[in-house]
Amino acid sequence: MGETEQKEKSHKEKRKEYTYNKLKGLGLEIIEDIEKNKVPSVKVPSRGTGNIIYDDTKRYYVLGDRYGRRSLGNVKQIRKLGQMVYVANFCKDLVAREKTATIREMYYVSEGWGISFKTQQESNIVGEDLEVTLGTTREDLGLMPEEDGASVYGDINLIDEGTEINATKMGKSGYTISPTIDQVDLRECNVDKVLAVETMGMFHRLVQENAHKRFNCLIVGLKGQAARATRRFLKRINEEKGLPVYICNDGDPWGFHIAQVIISGSAKLAHVNEDLATPDAKFIGVTASDIINYDLPTDKLKDVDVMRLKELSKDPRYKSDFWQTEIKKMLKIGKKAEQQSFSKYGLEYVVDTYFPAKFEEMENQA
Amino acid sequence: MGETEQKEKSHKEKRKEYTYNKLKGLGLEIIEDIEKNKVPSVKVPSRGTGNIIYDDTKRYYVLGDRYGRRSLGNVKQIRKLGQMVYVANFCKDLVAREKTATIREMYYVSEGWGISFKTQQESNIVGEDLEVTLGTTREDLGLMPEEDGASVYGDINLIDEGTEINATKMGKSGYTISPTIDQVDLRECNVDKVLAVETMGMFHRLVQENAHKRFNCLIVGLKGQAARATRRFLKRINEEKGLPVYICNDGDPWGFHIAQVIISGSAKLAHVNEDLATPDAKFIGVTASDIINYDLPTDKLKDVDVMRLKELSKDPRYKSDFWQTEIKKMLKIGKKAEQQSFSKYGLEYVVDTYFPAKFEEMENQA
Repeated sequence: MGETEQKEKSHKEKRKEYTYNKLKGLGLEIIEDIEKNKVPSVKVPSRGTGNIIYDDTKRYYVLGDRYGRRSLGNVKQIRKLGQMVYVANFCKDLVAREKTATIREMYYVSEGWGISFKTQQESNIVGEDLEVTLGTTREDLGLMPEEDGASVYGDINLIDEGTEINATKMGKSGYTISPTIDQVDLRECNVDKVLAVETMGMFHRLVQENAHKRFNCLIVGLKGQAARATRRFLKRINEEKGLPVYICNDGDPWGFHIAQVIISGSAKLAHVNEDLATPDAKFIGVTASDIINYDLPTDKLKDVDVMRLKELSKDPRYKSDFWQTEIKKMLKIGKKAEQQSFSKYGLEYVVDTYFPAKFEEMENQA
Repeated sequence: MGETEQKEKSHKEKRKEYTYNKLKGLGLEIIEDIEKNKVPSVKVPSRGTGNIIYDDTKRYYVLGDRYGRRSLGNVKQIRKLGQMVYVANFCKDLVAREKTATIREMYYVSEGWGISFKTQQESNIVGEDLEVTLGTTREDLGLMPEEDGASVYGDINLIDEGTEINATKMGKSGYTISPTIDQVDLRECNVDKVLAVETMGMFHRLVQENAHKRFNCLIVGLKGQAARATRRFLKRINEEKGLPVYICNDGDPWGFHIAQVIISGSAKLAHVNEDLATPDAKFIGVTASDIINYDLPTDKLKDVDVMRLKELSKDPRYKSDFWQTEIKKMLKIGKKAEQQSFSKYGLEYVVDTYFPAKFEEMENQA
């Protein structure tokens, strides 16, 4: 137990210390300016589209070098800088007390501040400004998104809230990734891969068919577009445990992109992709080739699907031969298929036949 | 442990047996008709609006006595009755093997049947027909909704998948109610009430402030409109454990109705309200009176809010003085408030001040 507690402290405490010092540093910078009789100003990296760059080596979007200055010497910026200092102070208090608040709660709390926000949109932006200025994630600052992350089922031990838990002993719906996933320690993990699927329907199918035992994997139910906490979890498990991550979604542009955001991050969150993107994660289906090879039940592509596929084909994250081929093929057949459509061949087919074939294919590639 | 296993069997097995016999009975009825040289037909209770009645004694919607007959002697009904028999057979197999399928999976499985469905809408309706004909829930038939239910935090022991778990030892996001909640046994429960809240933001606030210990309650995060599994859980905990259920949602017509559907059921699901409605559950806020008394940050009612409030005021489920007064008051002030708006007074206020006041009020009423 002694070792347990010490290790737990290490991940959580490391991040806490780092964030606290960053916040303190911001305040000290302003105080220094004042003491030197300089007009206080803060350097804020630009998040404009011109400063969002796809990094070929890192294989995700990053921010470039451009930045702006928020100065108290500029009448237009006084309000913004004031708000930023208030938010930073609020966050410093959260971090010190090991508390969190939703961005909605912060918006309401700000009613009591000297410089409050007109809309939540405004307070969200200041939160993001702070994130990018300090180079921390919003979650590290104690500002939580509303929604929980994915469901996890399989033989992994975690320490959450001081309790060691195993994700096969939490009921059929498994462990829910909470927004505060960086306060959790990943421990013993008796699996050799992670299988993330788009729908909870497929998640429950996999649990029911004992896929976690048959494939020696963690099953992750993404619930559509992956929450930040889910992406952080997948990143950490890939890095800390060295496990390969496989993603299986619906065979349509939206399923493709749910996988891609996990793999290469989003442009909008370029400043935190380093913490969120898992460039080694692999999309294993449903591909356009799967639709043909498995003769799956399909729906016709809608105009909006076709438009989206064309957009994706020009996106730097989709420039590999694999993606280019699959996007072209889908446009050619004009059809899409859901991951649950494998049940055409019976409920067990996806676990008995499809996934084994896919994993073999992956191993042969590696 | 011996006793544990025996008890677990009892709830799950009782429902299994009941459902299996109902399904078998349906088949036998048809066979009997054939053996007697009668044209087979099945009696299907009507789900039309004319047959949905608010039962004042039960305090929820029920189905009336009207029914129709699906007969193989009627050319128009042959297809529908055939589909129903196929679905019943599919469900009998699920129940026997203790498996489940999503309604989406069933739709795809049906591709292999003699009489397949043109759309999922069509297969859903046949599923509901079967539900109402047999007087069982879809979940008992093994047909699962896609989505998981609410999150539960607090000192309750459950047996899910043969493992005894405690909902304070599953991480910050607690226990997730799975769609198969009737396969779960509720065990030792060291709380004296249930507090269900609309948003996960509020759920995490309550967990963080140790509300489960302070109020000796289970905390339930509804995630908006409560899933069927959530409503079934609340019903069971209220009945089996005799615990009062309190609901706190956003102070607007949508928050009111999320509570009301838990309390009095929905008209659309009149045939299963007996299993889902918890007439003794209480809505404790956010009321229009709270908005005034606590001087909460508000938004103006939109046209659609006003329309909805007027609709609710005419709904039999809202005929009590309490609801009539609160609806009128909200229309009069023309304002609504979110449950997180209490953070205007600090993050802890809702737990330090608001909920204690509400619980005292409730106890004085009782």
